[in-house]
Amino acid sequence: MRIALDAMGGDKAPAETVKGAVAAAKTLGIEVLLVGRREEIETELSKHKTAGLPLRVIDAPDVIDMGEPPAQAVRRKPNSSLVIATQLSTGEADAMVSAGNSGAAMAACLFKMGRIEGIERPAIAGLIPTFHGRVLVIDIGANTECRPDNLLQFAIMGSIYMQKVCRVTEPRVALLSNGEEDTKGTALVKETHKLLRSAPVLFTGNIEAKDVPFNTADVVVTDGFTGNILLKMGEGVVSMMTMLIKQELSRDILTKLASAPLIPAFDRIKSRLDYAEYGGAPLLGVNGVGIIAHGRSDAKAVRNAIRAAKHAVEEGTVEAIKSMVKASAPAANK
Amino acid sequence: MRIALDAMGGDKAPAETVKGAVAAAKTLGIEVLLVGRREEIETELSKHKTAGLPLRVIDAPDVIDMGEPPAQAVRRKPNSSLVIATQLSTGEADAMVSAGNSGAAMAACLFKMGRIEGIERPAIAGLIPTFHGRVLVIDIGANTECRPDNLLQFAIMGSIYMQKVCRVTEPRVALLSNGEEDTKGTALVKETHKLLRSAPVLFTGNIEAKDVPFNTADVVVTDGFTGNILLKMGEGVVSMMTMLIKQELSRDILTKLASAPLIPAFDRIKSRLDYAEYGGAPLLGVNGVGIIAHGRSDAKAVRNAIRAAKHAVEEGTVEAIKSMVKASAPAANK
Repeated sequence: MRIALDAMGGDKAPAETVKGAVAAAKTLGIEVLLVGRREEIETELSKHKTAGLPLRVIDAPDVIDMGEPPAQAVRRKPNSSLVIATQLSTGEADAMVSAGNSGAAMAACLFKMGRIEGIERPAIAGLIPTFHGRVLVIDIGANTECRPDNLLQFAIMGSIYMQKVCRVTEPRVALLSNGEEDTKGTALVKETHKLLRSAPVLFTGNIEAKDVPFNTADVVVTDGFTGNILLKMGEGVVSMMTMLIKQELSRDILTKLASAPLIPAFDRIKSRLDYAEYGGAPLLGVNGVGIIAHGRSDAKAVRNAIRAAKHAVEEGTVEAIKSMVKASAPAANK
Repeated sequence: MRIALDAMGGDKAPAETVKGAVAAAKTLGIEVLLVGRREEIETELSKHKTAGLPLRVIDAPDVIDMGEPPAQAVRRKPNSSLVIATQLSTGEADAMVSAGNSGAAMAACLFKMGRIEGIERPAIAGLIPTFHGRVLVIDIGANTECRPDNLLQFAIMGSIYMQKVCRVTEPRVALLSNGEEDTKGTALVKETHKLLRSAPVLFTGNIEAKDVPFNTADVVVTDGFTGNILLKMGEGVVSMMTMLIKQELSRDILTKLASAPLIPAFDRIKSRLDYAEYGGAPLLGVNGVGIIAHGRSDAKAVRNAIRAAKHAVEEGTVEAIKSMVKASAPAANK
């Protein structure tokens, strides 16, 4: 298997992307194509032991910046690392990973891979850490405004991903709302609730945001605006509490000394809540595997995003979505 | 000053509501009218030292349950503790506090107090704990679907509340979105952004959910659906992390022993993130002071909700909103 990595994408690229690619090539049994400015990448590669590793540099002179307008950037920079990596994933490689401009990564996947027939709106599915593990939220930002049938397809795609890639036998799918009762929510939520009742997923009803961190569902379905708020609030509160704990535990020298033996326990907490643990977020509904990693990704996050891409290819998520969409087409058009 | 308390409202009523009322009467220099089933309230009162305290029981035979449909319950139970407490607040008392069915509390305030002229949709404003203190989110659940001019009024009312009750000299008002750029967000967010540019508040632009816990704004404006997701996700993540820390620190006897001296530090963290600290959430835009407290409120939360009611009355928030709405009417109709 071959994964094309946008080596120039992300706040810490190319140092961390290259380091992550080296780790992936070493441990995952796949070849990584490092796409970007050859010289910069080779300089980074020279800092690691890469002899015999399945790594190859593909030159791409242009870079799409974080702030650029996505669709425009993709059109104007056909020789950017992102666009070339995505192009490669439709032929020579099996998947694409980028930690760069996420809007542009989405646009590149849409343009180069195309949508799966029958899927109107591809969506980004993000895993968020919870008390017992993780939960998949779909959509976390691809579609600001949605219709009920879009959310129905998100539910189906999310369920397949959790089953195939995260190996949850029968994923419980819940609809995000401001109350558990069927009658709660916006018009969008109420209509989607009705569609999900007859959808080919294990629909468990509405879920309130306060229950999301406690794994009462495996897949949380929502529009991209609300999903973004949910995901980012989670991220914000985790980092706020982490800072608060650090501040309180370093308040005076006695507290500092007392807390030293607890460092392993705090490290375990940190790793249980680490967003980097889960790698990137797949764009589901496109005709290929595209993984969008966090802009702040370090080497570990990049390596894990490559691992997510590998699993998605191995488990045939795209094919599974294709056949599920075909089978559920009448439901989607109800 | 006199505050009418729905003594039967809340998961822990009447034990905790009565206890909270006793604390309020003792410390806040106000009279509390305890509205509800006289016998039950008097049984609870007998457990405390109440001699000479400004407390009075007002009999109300009916109780509205947590699960009852709000508007219907308010209409059908005119002799419920909630409805009588609200009725009292429009005459004999200056404000109403309830930890009961929040939809019903809202409906009772709307029916009995009425809206302030010019305010189309009253909204619930909730304080959430953050790294440096707290931030006011408006709306957190009164209005599932909103128009841009509703959000404009939420911004004005929230700004006045933060100024008057929380004593923030010039509250920074931000609009919740999925990106900081003006161009991000749903159609509702984009339209509201334009209105807020010329609103009589210190508008600082869009805010992402991840920044909400770090006090980059004092007031966060959003519709009631999204506000509920934001607030509840914050609550959920705080309790998830608290449980995670407890679990990791009691993993083995050595960790347990090592963490004992840190209990004061953890208590400080807990109190900094304690939702009960802030008391209830005011329903802003009605012609009176109505404070809706959390259903899980304990005595401390009830006492603090009564304190919030006292401050809102003292500082004349209703009058301030009235004159501000009059002054900004042309902006609202743009």
